[in-house]
Amino acid sequence: MSFTPARGSQPPASPARARLAFGGDYNPEQWPPEVWDEDVRLMAEAGVDLVTIGVFSWAHLETALDDFSFEWLDDVLGRLSTAGIGIDLATATASPPPWLTALHPEMLPVTREGHRLWPGGRQGFCPSSPVYRERALVLCGRLAERYAHIEGLRLWHVGNELGCHNALCFCDVSAAAFRVWLRNRYGDLAALNHAWGTDFWSQRYTDFEEILPPRTAAAVANPTQELDFRRFSSDELLANFVAERDVLHEVSPGIPVTTNFMITGHVREMDYWAWAREVDLVSNDHYLIAADPEGYTELAFCADLTRGVAGGGPWLLMETSPGAVNWQPRNIARRPGELLRSAMQHVSRGADGILFFQWRASRAGAEKYHAGILPHAGTDTRIWRESLELRRVLDAVAEVEGSVVRNRVGILFDWQAWWACELDSHPSSDVAYLDRAQALHRSLTDAGVGVDLAHPEADLTGYDLILVPTLYSVTDTAVERLQVAVEGGATALVTYFSGIVDENDHVRLGGYPGAFRNLLGIRVEEFLPLRQHDSVELSNGWSADLWVEHLHLDGAASVATYVDGPAAGIPAITRHTFGGGSAWYAACRLDRAGCDELVGQLLKASGVAPVAVARPGVEVTRREAEDGRSWLFVVNHSDQPVEVDAHGVELLTGKDVDVRLAVDAGGVAVVRET
Amino acid sequence: MSFTPARGSQPPASPARARLAFGGDYNPEQWPPEVWDEDVRLMAEAGVDLVTIGVFSWAHLETALDDFSFEWLDDVLGRLSTAGIGIDLATATASPPPWLTALHPEMLPVTREGHRLWPGGRQGFCPSSPVYRERALVLCGRLAERYAHIEGLRLWHVGNELGCHNALCFCDVSAAAFRVWLRNRYGDLAALNHAWGTDFWSQRYTDFEEILPPRTAAAVANPTQELDFRRFSSDELLANFVAERDVLHEVSPGIPVTTNFMITGHVREMDYWAWAREVDLVSNDHYLIAADPEGYTELAFCADLTRGVAGGGPWLLMETSPGAVNWQPRNIARRPGELLRSAMQHVSRGADGILFFQWRASRAGAEKYHAGILPHAGTDTRIWRESLELRRVLDAVAEVEGSVVRNRVGILFDWQAWWACELDSHPSSDVAYLDRAQALHRSLTDAGVGVDLAHPEADLTGYDLILVPTLYSVTDTAVERLQVAVEGGATALVTYFSGIVDENDHVRLGGYPGAFRNLLGIRVEEFLPLRQHDSVELSNGWSADLWVEHLHLDGAASVATYVDGPAAGIPAITRHTFGGGSAWYAACRLDRAGCDELVGQLLKASGVAPVAVARPGVEVTRREAEDGRSWLFVVNHSDQPVEVDAHGVELLTGKDVDVRLAVDAGGVAVVRET
Amino acid sequence: MSFTPARGSQPPASPARARLAFGGDYNPEQWPPEVWDEDVRLMAEAGVDLVTIGVFSWAHLETALDDFSFEWLDDVLGRLSTAGIGIDLATATASPPPWLTALHPEMLPVTREGHRLWPGGRQGFCPSSPVYRERALVLCGRLAERYAHIEGLRLWHVGNELGCHNALCFCDVSAAAFRVWLRNRYGDLAALNHAWGTDFWSQRYTDFEEILPPRTAAAVANPTQELDFRRFSSDELLANFVAERDVLHEVSPGIPVTTNFMITGHVREMDYWAWAREVDLVSNDHYLIAADPEGYTELAFCADLTRGVAGGGPWLLMETSPGAVNWQPRNIARRPGELLRSAMQHVSRGADGILFFQWRASRAGAEKYHAGILPHAGTDTRIWRESLELRRVLDAVAEVEGSVVRNRVGILFDWQAWWACELDSHPSSDVAYLDRAQALHRSLTDAGVGVDLAHPEADLTGYDLILVPTLYSVTDTAVERLQVAVEGGATALVTYFSGIVDENDHVRLGGYPGAFRNLLGIRVEEFLPLRQHDSVELSNGWSADLWVEHLHLDGAASVATYVDGPAAGIPAITRHTFGGGSAWYAACRLDRAGCDELVGQLLKASGVAPVAVARPGVEVTRREAEDGRSWLFVVNHSDQPVEVDAHGVELLTGKDVDVRLAVDAGGVAVVRET
Repeated sequence: MSFTPARGSQPPASPARARLAFGGDYNPEQWPPEVWDEDVRLMAEAGVDLVTIGVFSWAHLETALDDFSFEWLDDVLGRLSTAGIGIDLATATASPPPWLTALHPEMLPVTREGHRLWPGGRQGFCPSSPVYRERALVLCGRLAERYAHIEGLRLWHVGNELGCHNALCFCDVSAAAFRVWLRNRYGDLAALNHAWGTDFWSQRYTDFEEILPPRTAAAVANPTQELDFRRFSSDELLANFVAERDVLHEVSPGIPVTTNFMITGHVREMDYWAWAREVDLVSNDHYLIAADPEGYTELAFCADLTRGVAGGGPWLLMETSPGAVNWQPRNIARRPGELLRSAMQHVSRGADGILFFQWRASRAGAEKYHAGILPHAGTDTRIWRESLELRRVLDAVAEVEGSVVRNRVGILFDWQAWWACELDSHPSSDVAYLDRAQALHRSLTDAGVGVDLAHPEADLTGYDLILVPTLYSVTDTAVERLQVAVEGGATALVTYFSGIVDENDHVRLGGYPGAFRNLLGIRVEEFLPLRQHDSVELSNGWSADLWVEHLHLDGAASVATYVDGPAAGIPAITRHTFGGGSAWYAACRLDRAGCDELVGQLLKASGVAPVAVARPGVEVTRREAEDGRSWLFVVNHSDQPVEVDAHGVELLTGKDVDVRLAVDAGGVAVVRET
Repeated sequence: MSFTPARGSQPPASPARARLAFGGDYNPEQWPPEVWDEDVRLMAEAGVDLVTIGVFSWAHLETALDDFSFEWLDDVLGRLSTAGIGIDLATATASPPPWLTALHPEMLPVTREGHRLWPGGRQGFCPSSPVYRERALVLCGRLAERYAHIEGLRLWHVGNELGCHNALCFCDVSAAAFRVWLRNRYGDLAALNHAWGTDFWSQRYTDFEEILPPRTAAAVANPTQELDFRRFSSDELLANFVAERDVLHEVSPGIPVTTNFMITGHVREMDYWAWAREVDLVSNDHYLIAADPEGYTELAFCADLTRGVAGGGPWLLMETSPGAVNWQPRNIARRPGELLRSAMQHVSRGADGILFFQWRASRAGAEKYHAGILPHAGTDTRIWRESLELRRVLDAVAEVEGSVVRNRVGILFDWQAWWACELDSHPSSDVAYLDRAQALHRSLTDAGVGVDLAHPEADLTGYDLILVPTLYSVTDTAVERLQVAVEGGATALVTYFSGIVDENDHVRLGGYPGAFRNLLGIRVEEFLPLRQHDSVELSNGWSADLWVEHLHLDGAASVATYVDGPAAGIPAITRHTFGGGSAWYAACRLDRAGCDELVGQLLKASGVAPVAVARPGVEVTRREAEDGRSWLFVVNHSDQPVEVDAHGVELLTGKDVDVRLAVDAGGVAVVRET
Repeated sequence: MSFTPARGSQPPASPARARLAFGGDYNPEQWPPEVWDEDVRLMAEAGVDLVTIGVFSWAHLETALDDFSFEWLDDVLGRLSTAGIGIDLATATASPPPWLTALHPEMLPVTREGHRLWPGGRQGFCPSSPVYRERALVLCGRLAERYAHIEGLRLWHVGNELGCHNALCFCDVSAAAFRVWLRNRYGDLAALNHAWGTDFWSQRYTDFEEILPPRTAAAVANPTQELDFRRFSSDELLANFVAERDVLHEVSPGIPVTTNFMITGHVREMDYWAWAREVDLVSNDHYLIAADPEGYTELAFCADLTRGVAGGGPWLLMETSPGAVNWQPRNIARRPGELLRSAMQHVSRGADGILFFQWRASRAGAEKYHAGILPHAGTDTRIWRESLELRRVLDAVAEVEGSVVRNRVGILFDWQAWWACELDSHPSSDVAYLDRAQALHRSLTDAGVGVDLAHPEADLTGYDLILVPTLYSVTDTAVERLQVAVEGGATALVTYFSGIVDENDHVRLGGYPGAFRNLLGIRVEEFLPLRQHDSVELSNGWSADLWVEHLHLDGAASVATYVDGPAAGIPAITRHTFGGGSAWYAACRLDRAGCDELVGQLLKASGVAPVAVARPGVEVTRREAEDGRSWLFVVNHSDQPVEVDAHGVELLTGKDVDVRLAVDAGGVAVVRET
């Protein structure tokens, strides 16, 4: 991976030969130096070419206020350089050491209920803390000065999973920072009072100093206060990144700077569309949720979303686990072959490197049961062998480096809409933001169709099919972008509880979905959420649960109506010709079969063809280089072999493929297409 | 509705023509003045004749300490007066504004665990706060002075749902007030130590200053402390009402004063028997629990209980929702016709007016998904049309205004017994206070029999059948009242876990149920609660679960014994002749069929006939005027038409009814009887 | 019971005739003196010969600081002495009175989240509080001085259930004490930093003052910090005991001192192996968990464990309930005969006395629904009659007093391993420490085989069969002890997730289970926990769930392999010859039938024969006297009669038993064997 900065003016560190990175987090401070020797030897054996170092080293690097100790790190970095292993050097600011929080307990975060969170875990600091910022920048600067020019430095790694554990802090320091942020956003109180709807429940503010974070209140909090607090919190964390990045850019020009995102189904606090604009390279951490035997579908969604925030360009998988993790209720181990499949899912969707947490499994501490490339049991283990096999495969397909993924289908996705969608006191607490986005993504994947995740305010005119799942809040700009695309010929699908409010969480009046009524040619007078376990049938045989609506056609045609339930006889699925395109609406939560069939109709309507014809559980995707070369990836998650139409050279085996490519059960193939 | 004060010396505001009120909460401050024009026009169209205004207006009326701003309210009230719309003017003290809590954070309530509850919701004040009291009375006084004599003022509305969100506060201010209350109740510590049983667990107090609210402790709290704290908390909230009421009575004589109660299955903090003595008119808020498709049975129970606390006289439904609410997990919309059925349930049980929260659905804030008469989608909606239909029906039956409901069956009900019954460390946490009361009420309703809810210390001699469900704690006076009634010929039914303790939560010794052993002619030596999912059969074929007892007959006869379970062979249902009447006991939790059959036997034994013969799901009730007129109400919740014996004129259609009245599936009928 | 001190230099109080104690907690301060007369009369009628008095009397004995009031206690003790009833005198320090916590609120405990726990319950003090310690010792000293020489004093009872409700306190006082404890344990910070693995997550300490209890943190706490905090907390509570004991030994020599342990499945905070070394007599409180109809199996396990900590010698059941308790969700009453069966389970497993909480059921307070020997309903009750019957049976079998239980099978048990096993972030949160220990105990009991519970560092050479269930953490010493025993000929069984870490919770590297790899002849490279509801089949027909492993044979033989699941074809059960013995390994969680069969094979392999052949649900155990006499106990929990081989005299009936002893359904028998 060449680490071309994804954004900004920083030049790449140095030209590098095409190679997909392989490696992981390396925490040498947990082991005595004799182990370091073994580490470097085994890294060479495994083909590790990039390690992240120093993530949790603050306590070892600054052992007391302004008392720095770099010698041990000099030693380790020297060994790595000598061995030709690339370095992703962390700024070590992820977790402040005990001496610092003991000096400044006001740095510690505070929960919504008012509980101070004490040291003993990690990342225990208030994101708005000026003390934290000051000390982090001192450390970051010292590291940059010392190591900017060492051999093998390929990447700077700011903090770690910023916002993990401490994304929302409700302390007095945060309150003061929130007020500053609000002054910047609104200018004056009149604007804030309007946006927050403080005319309700006697909440009107007369002085910025009266404003607090949405701490636990006697009743449901003001929803716009909550929404702005989430925006503020994401911005505060990002500001910490930017401050460190600026130091690094100044002291260490030419080395790209990243921080590892957490684009995954269970983290939602950071608006990564905004974050991606600030990093030189998008990198992401992804861990499978073990409870779901088909968790690979969530991986595929997250990988596509990561590529989306990376602007379509290559990105880096900064962390995943070579085996089981330790923080889920039941930490299911990977099945044989799963490590390769997961890794190739990421590569097929734009990753140019696969790194793991962590190199060597810890023997102590809270994460000792998190797998490492080098397990507790040593190298005579399946995990070690499959890791080496992965390195071999990455080399075999190294030519894909720098290529991109281009799709004709886009799903609109917005963290801010996620926050707004899942606020309290909504019609049904069963409506989950990710639900429809992931369901539609899965139906497309099962149909062999690639899909991008796009910001609602992006230019959508390049897409033939645009899906708008549960996009509860939208700006006027986003509405306009979608209309322009449909007028220009695209097909769109909007699902229920989309376009209901503006960015202030104010209802768009006159009938739902206010933002899209015109586009969709419908008017909804009332939501009809269903009771738990209830479901309804549609006139075309599909089933749905959770949500139906009292809908009127206002230009649209009915595709299917409800046969029973509270909206019997009322249209459930509609289609509306709009300019040169058409806009569909799904007013209910279709089950998996219904979702598949709807997606099939939309693909037909929009003329989008699959990458290749496969079957559910088999991923078929394509990367394309600027020079016209392309690669077909097949990842077979099923327990049956599969055949796929392909022409070219299969890179793992080196064999020519004429017409049909056979992929074993659980197997992976990559074809350079001709 | 004429708003004759239910209690006290205040004369009615003015003679009014017979009309059942229709309207709701109106929050004009959420909208610009151009919307006010539309509001008044549409209110006239809808036939609104009473609106509640100013509930959450404190922040708009007092914009800083002693800085008042009434002009906007003058404007709105003027528009309403001009349009002839009656005004229920709130004292605007429901939610203190941010400037006040910023000045006095000690006003904010504190939870049992010690969490301060911050602003951002509503009603965030400590009920014992002297600052709150002082500022509330200033505002209340200013409003009373300004508006006492305006045209159209029909009612004062103190606060809002007093005790919603802030019923129990554990702060130091509350602690001090609790001590004052305890001094008043007990006089000295010896009496308190006795009542609280502080000889147990080394809890004896030697100074009132040692006493605290029942904050979270290392082990289960003292139950009598908890009970007294609930009494205190209800009294403190009521004292806030009384203080405002007294100001209003002084400044604005002749206008009745109310506050909206929350008599419903999920609110239990206020002892409304005591509260009803202080209001000029009983008004209530009731919302259906959407998870229950048969939630109308809970409505019927609550409406009867509201009439009970109103002393049998008419009362006002101050709030219900014209559609879905926003605060339940799944907010199910009303089905077609349900709005009318619900409203007529209330009217048939004594309501002389139906008001809604709220007139116009909000576009922002925490309650924007709470339905309004005027929905987000406007007037071309079912909710709007059904609201207008309701107004028409209320006019058609307006002659019932002022009439009352008289029944021969009474259920004893006591909020203080509810609190005591559900304290910690009881034999079974499955015993819920409302369970038997609502089950018996439902069986009676299904049998077409009307029933009153009565305080246990009320004079019961007017009832032929008295039901005593799960009345865990009773005073000696209550025991005496019941005995007198039975001696005089009444039939009584007592169910398990009744009469166990006195008002201090001290067990009445010598065998359960200590208070009623003599009346019932039984002695229970041991409770035998069942494991979850276990059930038992009775010798008469009935089934029961949750609870059985080791019971001995001591004068009573066995009606049925257990066939199996831990009390096999032991009487489950008993009957005891007592004076001229008889007293039955049900020692187990009968299932619905068993409860129906038991109620059938009791009705036969007491000679109580139904209002009319109907079937389950069809409510048949009667209101009676002092002049001898009477009206039969039929509300058909079922999906089948029904026929009921009736003679007179059906008021909705104006048609004569000779012998049989046919009511459509889901329909409503009101017959002026001849 | 003669109350020979189990440990230490204190001589027994006085020679006493052989009798098994019977009585319970007596709280006369809850009742007026006229009730005391009745109490003493009824105690005599019931045969009570030992009562615990003063447990919660602090508020009555010291009514203000240094203001003591002993007269009432003089009176009560005098009545008891006169009636010849033995006295177990509590030091009354269980619950500090309100006046003391009002003077010193810093005495109150604080939760992990930072909530102060307020008075109102019981035992609301920080275990490390110097104020508590000081005042407790003053009271203890005054009681000892006053009552050391009274007639009938047989036992001192320090505090009550030490650690119930307040075992873990996170306040600043506790933090300071924790630091002192850590200095003692580690000497310097380098050792602490190593043990806690603070190299991970930047947690390295540079000053002891930086260290805090494991209060709620932003992420998972350091596991060794948590483990040490549990060790510290157990030690702090024990130190309070020791301080009082030393006062009592000095002032009142010759009277044994105890405190009631809580050896039960739902309390785990105290390391009773350490505690037992400090008491003169082991006494225990045990309450059945009512939700489990077969809760007697948990009782049997706990009774054996109590005997284990008592060094095999007799012990005293200090508390159980004569009927239902009050603190479980559903407090199921005892079935007829169950009181005797439970009591005889304790006696058969080493108890020399059965005491109850409490003598007379309270009429007020938090425990009023906890059964007493004398129920609310008085003496005409089953509980009273069955209590008297128990006294009769205890007299009939009094000759067993002082005899012991000797077994050839041992189960290793360690509270510290329990704590470590259930720390956060483990491979599967389904792994529960007690699960396998209780399952193996049950299989042995159903097979009629007696079993000891032994500390892992005990000398194990006396056992023929040693079971090591889920012993997650072990010291090198423990490993050595087990190896020595197996080398000497014993058979051992180790189950999954044993021997994984050392006492610092550091993984023993090189393959699991690091501590036992050598002994077992296996190497596990990876844990393969199963998803919820998944199960696997074994080649010998057994079933398992929750956990399997990727295991390699390294000298061991495979007994059974997995047929399906993630380890299909891999050994599940192994056997390894080691010295003169053999060591088995069970890598999965067998269901009940599989566990029974495995135990059957182990008994055969080790040549251990049952006490007698019975069937599941029938307990068959033996006590043995030093003079060679022995007694066979049979407790039939089933609803069918049973016959057991026996020779001798059945003591309850006095009848000779020739070959076969018949025991009724639900019955009990004790045979003096010949």
